[in-house]
Amino acid sequence: MKHWFKSIENDATGTSYPLDKVIAELNFDADGLIPVIAQDEKSKKVLMFAWMSKESLDETLRTGKMCYWSRSRQGLWRKGSSSGHSQTVKSIAADCDGDVLLAEVSQVGFACHTRRHSCFYLRFWEDKVTLIE
Amino acid sequence: MKHWFKSIENDATGTSYPLDKVIAELNFDADGLIPVIAQDEKSKKVLMFAWMSKESLDETLRTGKMCYWSRSRQGLWRKGSSSGHSQTVKSIAADCDGDVLLAEVSQVGFACHTRRHSCFYLRFWEDKVTLIE
Repeated sequence: MKHWFKSIENDATGTSYPLDKVIAELNFDADGLIPVIAQDEKSKKVLMFAWMSKESLDETLRTGKMCYWSRSRQGLWRKGSSSGHSQTVKSIAADCDGDVLLAEVSQVGFACHTRRHSCFYLRFWEDKVTLIE
Repeated sequence: MKHWFKSIENDATGTSYPLDKVIAELNFDADGLIPVIAQDEKSKKVLMFAWMSKESLDETLRTGKMCYWSRSRQGLWRKGSSSGHSQTVKSIAADCDGDVLLAEVSQVGFACHTRRHSCFYLRFWEDKVTLIE
């Protein structure tokens, strides 16, 4: 599966490929999932990390709203559907191996279920870890 | 395992915990790995995504240089050891569930093996995906 991504890595900047082709080549794991990093489009803060299935990626691209796959609930997770804290997609990129996605989003409210802006609020520092938010 | 992270989520900003305790509670997966996002400390660009074992995390914290676990080679992956493109750790944070790490790094050279600054160079746009770097 990774061969296709390898085959294009020396193509010129600006070269385009059909979206369907790229999605077909993405490396979904044994559970049919791909990791997704959500980054705030303005602050560039990394907000959260979650997973998408092919179905949730299709929905995300169709609606422009982030729709993950909940591994605990084993179902589509339309971010903000219960909290109102939705994420509007500003851009999506795949990495060099086609096995991770990065989404820049416009976040309504809080990305984290703890009502913090980012899920990454536990900062390591020397021999301690501190709640930074 | 996730109970400990749940138990501290309402603690006050600034509360600290011993590093050893937090590492012991991290949710390494069935293969003993945890996903790691590397972000450029200055540009805030997301550079790459990889995995760490407990051993590679310990080495990273001890040396201040990013050391991943290579799933393809099944061994420690000291970033830059062959390319020279090392990453100096500026900060590390864990997420609310303790199952993902975010590292801010100072990158020497290129994060990506293709000699691009970031691995996320395949931008989705409408019905195409374009090489943006």
